[in-house]
Amino acid sequence: MLSFRRTHTCGDLNKKHDGSSVSLSGWVHRRRDHGGLIFIDLRDRFGLTQLVFDPHANPDMHAAAEKLRSEWVITVKGKVHPRIAGMENSKLSTGDIEIIVEEMDVLSKAKTPPFSISDEQVEVNEELRLKYRYLDIRRGDIADKLIKRHKAMMSTRKFLDSQNFSEITTPILGKSTPEGARDYLVPSRVHPGNFYALPQSPQIFKQLLMVAGMDRYFQIAQCFRDEDLRADRQPEFTQIDVEMSFGTPEDLLPIIEDLLKTIFKECNDIGISTPFKRLTHAFCMEKYGCDRPDLRFNMQLSNITEIAKRSSFTVFNDQIQQGGIVKALCVKGGADLSRRQIDEYTEFVGRFEIKGLAWMKYQDDALNSSIVKFFPEEVKKELIEATDASPGDLIFMIADLPNAVNQGLDHLRRKIARDRNLIDLKRLEFLWVTDFPLFNWDAEANRIQSEHHPFTSPNFEDIALMDTDPTKVRSLAYDVILNGYEIGGGSQRIHNSELQQKVFEALKLSPEELKSKFGFFLEALSYGTPPHLGIALGLDRILMILTETDNIRDVIAFPKTQKASDLMLESPSKVISAQLDELKLAISDPDYR
Amino acid sequence: MLSFRRTHTCGDLNKKHDGSSVSLSGWVHRRRDHGGLIFIDLRDRFGLTQLVFDPHANPDMHAAAEKLRSEWVITVKGKVHPRIAGMENSKLSTGDIEIIVEEMDVLSKAKTPPFSISDEQVEVNEELRLKYRYLDIRRGDIADKLIKRHKAMMSTRKFLDSQNFSEITTPILGKSTPEGARDYLVPSRVHPGNFYALPQSPQIFKQLLMVAGMDRYFQIAQCFRDEDLRADRQPEFTQIDVEMSFGTPEDLLPIIEDLLKTIFKECNDIGISTPFKRLTHAFCMEKYGCDRPDLRFNMQLSNITEIAKRSSFTVFNDQIQQGGIVKALCVKGGADLSRRQIDEYTEFVGRFEIKGLAWMKYQDDALNSSIVKFFPEEVKKELIEATDASPGDLIFMIADLPNAVNQGLDHLRRKIARDRNLIDLKRLEFLWVTDFPLFNWDAEANRIQSEHHPFTSPNFEDIALMDTDPTKVRSLAYDVILNGYEIGGGSQRIHNSELQQKVFEALKLSPEELKSKFGFFLEALSYGTPPHLGIALGLDRILMILTETDNIRDVIAFPKTQKASDLMLESPSKVISAQLDELKLAISDPDYR
Repeated sequence: MLSFRRTHTCGDLNKKHDGSSVSLSGWVHRRRDHGGLIFIDLRDRFGLTQLVFDPHANPDMHAAAEKLRSEWVITVKGKVHPRIAGMENSKLSTGDIEIIVEEMDVLSKAKTPPFSISDEQVEVNEELRLKYRYLDIRRGDIADKLIKRHKAMMSTRKFLDSQNFSEITTPILGKSTPEGARDYLVPSRVHPGNFYALPQSPQIFKQLLMVAGMDRYFQIAQCFRDEDLRADRQPEFTQIDVEMSFGTPEDLLPIIEDLLKTIFKECNDIGISTPFKRLTHAFCMEKYGCDRPDLRFNMQLSNITEIAKRSSFTVFNDQIQQGGIVKALCVKGGADLSRRQIDEYTEFVGRFEIKGLAWMKYQDDALNSSIVKFFPEEVKKELIEATDASPGDLIFMIADLPNAVNQGLDHLRRKIARDRNLIDLKRLEFLWVTDFPLFNWDAEANRIQSEHHPFTSPNFEDIALMDTDPTKVRSLAYDVILNGYEIGGGSQRIHNSELQQKVFEALKLSPEELKSKFGFFLEALSYGTPPHLGIALGLDRILMILTETDNIRDVIAFPKTQKASDLMLESPSKVISAQLDELKLAISDPDYR
Repeated sequence: MLSFRRTHTCGDLNKKHDGSSVSLSGWVHRRRDHGGLIFIDLRDRFGLTQLVFDPHANPDMHAAAEKLRSEWVITVKGKVHPRIAGMENSKLSTGDIEIIVEEMDVLSKAKTPPFSISDEQVEVNEELRLKYRYLDIRRGDIADKLIKRHKAMMSTRKFLDSQNFSEITTPILGKSTPEGARDYLVPSRVHPGNFYALPQSPQIFKQLLMVAGMDRYFQIAQCFRDEDLRADRQPEFTQIDVEMSFGTPEDLLPIIEDLLKTIFKECNDIGISTPFKRLTHAFCMEKYGCDRPDLRFNMQLSNITEIAKRSSFTVFNDQIQQGGIVKALCVKGGADLSRRQIDEYTEFVGRFEIKGLAWMKYQDDALNSSIVKFFPEEVKKELIEATDASPGDLIFMIADLPNAVNQGLDHLRRKIARDRNLIDLKRLEFLWVTDFPLFNWDAEANRIQSEHHPFTSPNFEDIALMDTDPTKVRSLAYDVILNGYEIGGGSQRIHNSELQQKVFEALKLSPEELKSKFGFFLEALSYGTPPHLGIALGLDRILMILTETDNIRDVIAFPKTQKASDLMLESPSKVISAQLDELKLAISDPDYR
């Protein structure tokens, strides 16, 4: 039996190896019979190498090669030869050479795969690819993305280690909390009737590590959320989780910028410039209608409520009277949009419960549309000025409650940018969004609630406002945005117990609620808590951007579907009743037994 | 308010900084009032720095310092001064200097902790330490161990990355299998009545990644086992999991040796020599009674069955006739053992269900004991020769079934070595144990079963024995042992479907059993499996050796007790009934509701 230990991978050999005796092992990628010779493209993760079986030089091996089928695993010994002039393949690193095979052994045969491995052009249904994930990875595209994921994790760890952060593993078997509606529970066999919960994030643990004095912590952490899944979510996802003591955002944000710079450099050889732009939450909402604007294109929103008031357009005025606002979006060159295209955008914003999309075209030095008659000349001028419109542009306008207007125009802005190819796909626009409000108004509960969580520090300058106008208090929370995606977020935490008390009072939390919701954590904070702050970055999302995919499943080795199923393992699945008996559990609904 | 951003940590400053203005933040470790001056040892993870408050130079600050209590968090500004000659503390890196405090701010106060942070000499009950883990870590010893854990993980990752292994994260939400009696189950909300299982190891995933062509994989993986816990087990534990394609143990074992060499060098600055010793499983069982011998001391066992047969000692002969063996252990200088000590050893081996411990002392050129009369002179000579005994030694002997004899003498050998201080605690004795049997005999089921798992490859030289004498077939499995602890194990896997079929036939597994037990995995192996092999190292155990502790909880940030409870989180815990309702689950036994 020939040894399957190889001297080189299938991506290693080139003209410099001319004449060398080599051993290669890999998969039969393609076979071509040509002029009596058999050519095999031998494949491994590193590349393809052409093998040649010559019937005259080595009839036995040639006969054996005739039996080879796709995806069989073989090992060969042979000599490196340059390819005949004109037969080189410049697309391959090994394209200048071939191996004249002297010996060959079949290591394992293969059934015909459910889809072609060698023809990457063939579109394969994603369900089938997930069921045979081990074959899908073999096709190369997913493999490359997994290697990049490894590189991104290595870069992250090396960089954070160099900044004196220590990776500390926190438990997966954690505790369920009353808020943990989306917790995955894990029944305990040793303590029947009791449950662990898988962590939605290591938030409590990382803050406890600061209380413990660990100073600088990080973890590439698996997190779990049992929610109804959107396209870009997975029940288990990965966070780059960071926390540090005795610092402020002025210390942490540059570290995170350098971390991202390192990742993009080492993974994609892309230089990104720092410091990142910083915009306040209020500015983003005003100008982009969202807290995660895509800055690869401009198109800011204009608040035209005051201008609209001076029109006689009752649709606008009625909304304003009901507490609404009017905002506009100027589409450069948009006067070329057809009536039908405008109707499609109207239908599009309708999906976000926007009842109407007003518009005006700026043509021939005048605004045209069915509603211009409600706008006096003076008001039209103000409108043109406010939206910075030029001849040839189109102005879209929405009047509604502020949240609805912002949501509608944010989506519209992104859609128009895609439709009109305004986005430079090679650009990376990083952004910090800062100065989030500390509280928001919960209309249902008729009280304020924390925008992030109650341990988020207020901006020290705004502490006086806590008593007088709490919704005006800015927090020390920050998000990092890349190309319109939130890739991370965090905050300075409260370390001072009097300030913490003030926040709880503002939230009108009773001592009982406090105890049941935050119990032992408050106790932990009472033994001398250092000032600390942190951030969590979404590794999956960063990888999606690094590998240019919209599908989160492409960057995870063994992902689950949107219904949280693993099609390969066929999991989740029924278990035998003895397992449930041991846990003292029963399925309560007979329909699901 | 004084900024809490520091210029240095509490471990940074020394004489070179004389005269510098610095800012430090940390915890009040100790306070001493002396000759009007107040001295504070300020602490962080990096060290202690002495602060001085002078009532004459700065009466306000001195007054504030009088109020400081242990574990308060403060920030100070001041100047570095050399300590007065004779007052230096050579145990501290900062022991030559002190800080004359100019400004001070209290960042947070602290309740009196449940145990002293500053006095590490005080023994604290482990339950209390686990409940207040964040304070226990602050005491320093656990913190140092966690930092070493970080270093060991970094070393592992950097080294394996340098060897072209890629870290690939595999799912935590896996699938329960019929063998998974110790699986933690996770009920699915989206698919009521169905369950995920937490992985006991990533074994299936790593082999699938080889099928997928990923070539070289590793992962520092969290694994889970819901078992009755022994002192050195945790329900979640960590493996350094490695798998490679197209190699043999001759490729992998040196990589693992270099990995361990790197970890010990980078974490403890200890050089270990490679290659490691290799002993076969059969040799270890014969000479040490176990497959994980501690080689820091000698004391081999001697099989004296043939010699014992020539005695008239019926206890031995009865055992031999019932299929038993007799083995001996020579204790160098053991003739000094008292009758009472020997009785204690008899009682000790009794715990392993050994009914009797025979012994002879070699004194005054003769063997003495109550049983020597059953041994003719000639036989006594053979006994002395076989056990390599010298005058002053003692020979212990056990007669029983082979497994019992080996277990009893293995434990006795380890205990005597500890009792007689034969172990050099600074020595590191690495060892590969190879040539495990592929199968063992399952007396209960009356058939052979796999020693490891049915995908373990037989030694290629022994394949002919599969049909004739399967229990003689050696496998290509290997364990790595350090100082008598198994720190890892793995094997070459079967990649050839005909060989796999032969193993299944030897195991007498029906096609139905095969399908239910290994289902989709066998399917995956049928599409072209490369030769591959791997290993899993126990990170927790390696850390215990690196940090010289016998307590696995010392090397885990937030460990669980032997009853799998987290005393800090108070987990596992009851959950509200709405959570169970949503999962369509009920607790079947009212006692546990």
